[in-house]
Amino acid sequence: MQEKSKCVVLLSGGVDSATCLAIARAQGFETYALSFDYQQRHRIEIEAASRVARSQGVSGHMILDLPLGNIGGSALTDELEVPKDCSPEDMSSRIPVTYVPARNTIFLSFALAWAEVLEASDIFIGVNVLDYSGYPDCRPEYIEAFQRMANLATRITVEGKAFITIHTPLIRLTKSEIILRGVELGVDYGLTHSCYDPDPRGAACGRCDSCILRRNGFRQAGVDDPTVYAMR
Amino acid sequence: MQEKSKCVVLLSGGVDSATCLAIARAQGFETYALSFDYQQRHRIEIEAASRVARSQGVSGHMILDLPLGNIGGSALTDELEVPKDCSPEDMSSRIPVTYVPARNTIFLSFALAWAEVLEASDIFIGVNVLDYSGYPDCRPEYIEAFQRMANLATRITVEGKAFITIHTPLIRLTKSEIILRGVELGVDYGLTHSCYDPDPRGAACGRCDSCILRRNGFRQAGVDDPTVYAMR
Repeated sequence: MQEKSKCVVLLSGGVDSATCLAIARAQGFETYALSFDYQQRHRIEIEAASRVARSQGVSGHMILDLPLGNIGGSALTDELEVPKDCSPEDMSSRIPVTYVPARNTIFLSFALAWAEVLEASDIFIGVNVLDYSGYPDCRPEYIEAFQRMANLATRITVEGKAFITIHTPLIRLTKSEIILRGVELGVDYGLTHSCYDPDPRGAACGRCDSCILRRNGFRQAGVDDPTVYAMR
Repeated sequence: MQEKSKCVVLLSGGVDSATCLAIARAQGFETYALSFDYQQRHRIEIEAASRVARSQGVSGHMILDLPLGNIGGSALTDELEVPKDCSPEDMSSRIPVTYVPARNTIFLSFALAWAEVLEASDIFIGVNVLDYSGYPDCRPEYIEAFQRMANLATRITVEGKAFITIHTPLIRLTKSEIILRGVELGVDYGLTHSCYDPDPRGAACGRCDSCILRRNGFRQAGVDDPTVYAMR
């Protein structure tokens, strides 16, 4: 029996990364999940990531502490207010204050380092251009440039032992398409977490950008949303 | 009076980054130094970086804790042995075990994030191809690919407010040329630290790759090396 190829999957614990992990598994990879604790307001994400990783039988799950809060510049790490009740059209026309400077570049850099140690050539990231066209580091041209840089950056690629591929299976899917694909692959979305501003008990606010995209996605997919929303 | 442009300078506390910082100052930038504590054996580096930053009057010095040791794969973060007494020819023909996977990619990614928050368009890194041709992430083609990716990654570049430039003023200089340039600019090399394997009092071993390059550099430059080497 041929050994499975290893891959690193960036896992935040939300709908997209949980689906991305399931797709990597379905493609026959042995999966290693990588999550970050970056002083985000919603640390509950990390717990969701751990539940998702366990439920999908990853071979390893690394959670790295990152000092992104020291750098600042984002509502997710600073004391800026998370915007509420925006329309999907509003969201896609601006770079939101929840943007974290160079976040995907930092996340992919650590994925690259771990891939090199694992001797894995494949990295999965659940970025998506449709919901958030405002995030520069979710676009295909950015991912291609990262991949090109990665293949010049590391020992395994320079010695010709590997070619790093950055997989973005969700990049052109709508949220409802992502959810339908995940349901097909058996993803339990009850384990995931999306809200930028959960209440102290962990219930989702239902009104931040991330909650709105999630709710609309489930509605459009015709799938029941297992999320517990706070009544307020 | 025109305001100075800000730049981020990666500062390890060694000869190269101290010189790189002095060059950025000499080019008229307002400098922000960025150092990392990544569980390296030689944490004494961080103290050297702080001394160098202070002596060169930076506007800010950020030291970020990075969990590179969790990822592993390097003699600088693992329990692998640091090689001793290698010839410069030996060093340049291989990727040393002191290579840290994707290190410069990770460091530059954080520099990029901080640059975005500072609204700085310039990043300085003291990489050099001559001494260590074995490090893939010290080569010009790698730096160019990073710069290209960086200009697709961030809000300030995508909104057309800036073009990120990665400056590598040392990339083609020999160690002795670097030292002569630094002496010209008033760098106090007595504040710097190079050794991969210092003794408990902080004295340099004199025999690791980094010490050998440093000693040869000072000798070839005809400059007294202020380093305290352990007698052993």
